[in-house]
Amino acid sequence: MIEIIRTLNQFETFRNNLRPGTIGFVPTMGNLHKGHLSLVKESLRQNDNTIVSIFVNPKQFGPNEDFEKYPRTLGEDNKKLKDLYRDEEFRGRLLTIFAPEVPEEIFPSNFSTKITVGDLTNKLCGINRPGHFDGVTTVVYRLFSIVKPHKAYFGQKDYQQYLVCKKMIEDLRLNIQLVPMPTKRDEDGLAMSSRNQYLTGTDRELALVLPQTLEKLKETIKSNFWPESYGLALELAGESKKEGDWDYLEILDAKTLREPSERTHTVILAGALKLGHTRLIDNKLVEIRYAR
Amino acid sequence: MIEIIRTLNQFETFRNNLRPGTIGFVPTMGNLHKGHLSLVKESLRQNDNTIVSIFVNPKQFGPNEDFEKYPRTLGEDNKKLKDLYRDEEFRGRLLTIFAPEVPEEIFPSNFSTKITVGDLTNKLCGINRPGHFDGVTTVVYRLFSIVKPHKAYFGQKDYQQYLVCKKMIEDLRLNIQLVPMPTKRDEDGLAMSSRNQYLTGTDRELALVLPQTLEKLKETIKSNFWPESYGLALELAGESKKEGDWDYLEILDAKTLREPSERTHTVILAGALKLGHTRLIDNKLVEIRYAR
Repeated sequence: MIEIIRTLNQFETFRNNLRPGTIGFVPTMGNLHKGHLSLVKESLRQNDNTIVSIFVNPKQFGPNEDFEKYPRTLGEDNKKLKDLYRDEEFRGRLLTIFAPEVPEEIFPSNFSTKITVGDLTNKLCGINRPGHFDGVTTVVYRLFSIVKPHKAYFGQKDYQQYLVCKKMIEDLRLNIQLVPMPTKRDEDGLAMSSRNQYLTGTDRELALVLPQTLEKLKETIKSNFWPESYGLALELAGESKKEGDWDYLEILDAKTLREPSERTHTVILAGALKLGHTRLIDNKLVEIRYAR
Repeated sequence: MIEIIRTLNQFETFRNNLRPGTIGFVPTMGNLHKGHLSLVKESLRQNDNTIVSIFVNPKQFGPNEDFEKYPRTLGEDNKKLKDLYRDEEFRGRLLTIFAPEVPEEIFPSNFSTKITVGDLTNKLCGINRPGHFDGVTTVVYRLFSIVKPHKAYFGQKDYQQYLVCKKMIEDLRLNIQLVPMPTKRDEDGLAMSSRNQYLTGTDRELALVLPQTLEKLKETIKSNFWPESYGLALELAGESKKEGDWDYLEILDAKTLREPSERTHTVILAGALKLGHTRLIDNKLVEIRYAR
């Protein structure tokens, strides 16, 4: 049986009385797909207790973004988690959903503190979504302070978000291990996202240009030596951006999100593509190769 | 014997092995005067273990402020604490100084997280010292995460700083009680401050206008009913500001730092006065009185 907790007060009582053992945490905004479920499974495997939060965080949406229409599907989310939890593999593991009914329990009306991670946030999604990452780090901190987990599971699709939260954990000396998990994709290669359902039929097809372009860049970097591979990939990226409405398409050092340097081992190929009112992101990590 | 710890590593070992009991914390920038010492005494009275940190925090100084010349007097600070600790009253209490020798142990070079408390910080000292309170909350958070105290002692002279840190504690759900302590004054009424020693002889005399003006405002508010008292005090403040180089001189609700409202019980009279290159602050709290 999965317990679903809907108030902060109840959650705190639950948390204070939780049986001993490690606590894995999967923070989500609900509307769960296989990407989320893979995080929950990994947490169940690795921890005695797993807590999934479902909270659509107002602070990470810009004024013209899709906060209002973001899909809220708590009934279906519960069902998916229940189905997953039934698996013999997870016997003896505890799974709990924390889905605060009143958003003011997470952010009271007089809440006025903001956590900002500099540097990593002023590129990629940080450019056209000002304040987005402050909203992410602030809610993640707040949820961490409530859930007090040992490990937290983040999807690699939101790679920048993962890096930013990891930096916050380091700088604020939070004793939490972040576990990044591989991006889940539809059969045709599109990264799973709650926002995919906004796409019209045509846009859904056009969206494939995002993973396909990243894949081509990846092949270019894998099949050539660095830094020639970098030059070729940059050229290809420039060409690719001529078609489609790209927010960005970049090749960066995967640790610093800066331009690759002689200390770079792995690059991230990161793209954000707009299709109508929908903006999709995706990325791939590639180790670079030097000629011997 | 007071132990003086100069590295983060050593401090963490010390903290992990600290005997059970409550921990009181007095964060300072050193150059201790009677104001600081009154905080240390109160912590010693109230706690089994007291930790005084001495760290001149670069993040809370603006680019044209006095970070470089801020007085560093570790030898004298140690001596003052040693003298105070000798008192019979504190027998059995543990006092430890944490004075990191290498500032990068508190803020490593790649540190990039900032904690901002909104609202309370965009007035009084927040106006002419942009970024100052972010620097304060960020270092206080960082020190809290290292010291892990039960209580922390703050001087009321920096009343806005106290309120801002209290709000951070609330919003970030830190389990720490802030204890505000009354401002210590020289015999002539000037609030004690490490910056007083910057004053030339003439400026030291002129500085008295700050506590004297606040005292007059206080008398005006105490000896009249609200809101007449508010009107009279505003008038007096307006007159007072005509002489001397005031950064601000304000009458605000002591909880919100906003204009007093029908919900106000206590006002803060807060002033910042510039004397040459030195800027002094002071404040008084006054309960307002309604006619029956």
